[in-house]
Amino acid sequence: MSSIEICLTHEQLENYQHKDKNVVVIDVLRATSTINTILFSGAKSVMPVETLDECMKLRDQGYIIMAERMGKKVEGFDFGNSPTKIKKSEFEGKDVGIATSNGTKAIVKTKGSHITLIGSFLNLSKIIEYINNSNNDVLLVCSGWKGSTNLEDTLCAGAIVAGLQNFEYDSDTVIIAKKLYEQSKGDILSLMQKSSHAKRLSGYDNVKDIEFCSQVDTQEILPFFDKEKIRLL
Amino acid sequence: MSSIEICLTHEQLENYQHKDKNVVVIDVLRATSTINTILFSGAKSVMPVETLDECMKLRDQGYIIMAERMGKKVEGFDFGNSPTKIKKSEFEGKDVGIATSNGTKAIVKTKGSHITLIGSFLNLSKIIEYINNSNNDVLLVCSGWKGSTNLEDTLCAGAIVAGLQNFEYDSDTVIIAKKLYEQSKGDILSLMQKSSHAKRLSGYDNVKDIEFCSQVDTQEILPFFDKEKIRLL
Repeated sequence: MSSIEICLTHEQLENYQHKDKNVVVIDVLRATSTINTILFSGAKSVMPVETLDECMKLRDQGYIIMAERMGKKVEGFDFGNSPTKIKKSEFEGKDVGIATSNGTKAIVKTKGSHITLIGSFLNLSKIIEYINNSNNDVLLVCSGWKGSTNLEDTLCAGAIVAGLQNFEYDSDTVIIAKKLYEQSKGDILSLMQKSSHAKRLSGYDNVKDIEFCSQVDTQEILPFFDKEKIRLL
Repeated sequence: MSSIEICLTHEQLENYQHKDKNVVVIDVLRATSTINTILFSGAKSVMPVETLDECMKLRDQGYIIMAERMGKKVEGFDFGNSPTKIKKSEFEGKDVGIATSNGTKAIVKTKGSHITLIGSFLNLSKIIEYINNSNNDVLLVCSGWKGSTNLEDTLCAGAIVAGLQNFEYDSDTVIIAKKLYEQSKGDILSLMQKSSHAKRLSGYDNVKDIEFCSQVDTQEILPFFDKEKIRLL
């Protein structure tokens, strides 16, 4: 029987073993939802980068460049981190570079995993299916917000756990996330709207992003990080 | 209306504002349960210290000295960190020094608070009563285990939140803890037994400590940290 653990913020990753595991990075609002949407819209690849400088340099190589800090698009970049701004006509066939406050940093940190999948509610069942069909141990990495646990990533991690078969979960964070999901699965959007980050985004006129990111299984794709870029499996 | 937040591990304390707030430190298994039991048994004071060296030096000043690392009593100290080893006959009127893996470190870090209360299930209602009768903002600090969120401290924090009146809680961790408690309040012991730390302790033959620490309101006391020692309010 395989094991599963949940790391509630990417800053705590060093407390967990991720090497050779199936890792799923989750940043529901909004990095992983946005990255999935970019690939769902036909982009060739998405390169997650940690700094704005690295991201800006990708423009010379023909990349669409996207950057967000404090929930807002950074001046000088083509896009921020909003999944509802992604149009197939603009992204199809393109390479994309993206730097966000938490999610892209989390992805980059998971090098050394067996595979790093990009998780969100949008592709929930595809993630669950992959994990159930593998015999590997699993680590779910929630991005969190500036080092603190957040509601929407914990909820999505709980949703993944709830769909698993043949896993041992004696980890405390797995029990916490699963119970949160079980209490809230009937109304994901309403709980997401209560989250601190939803309130932060509302202030930036991004209410529709929250509705978008709370949709379940609208994108049947399995994006993975190949240690440099994210592509479809 | 006052605000309440929960810091899920003491390593994350720097992400939160604790200055001038009512702070409650929680380490259900077992530091705060044990400290409360020591004072409930008539000890004069408990000094929480971070290192074994500091703790050992207190012996020369007539203190009972207690130390735990990795869940076990440290060689050379009078006691480890077990609340069921505390006898009134040995502790009444005494000063006690204690060093534990997580809880005593958490307490020492909260200097600068308006008041730091020592929380556990044993004195749950006294903690709730104090907070409800004050107009101050509140921060609950869960000790966690080696930098990771744990089940029993999150559950106890949720139990405190569930008892509060006239508080605004829009913090994500408050919502998570409250939902965990609401789902589990009928059977605190059974959830505690599922926690990783309970399994760790069972290995050290401390099953009865878990039962002891899951009791609610058996100690009507309000211990607080006066920046050096813990005493009864």
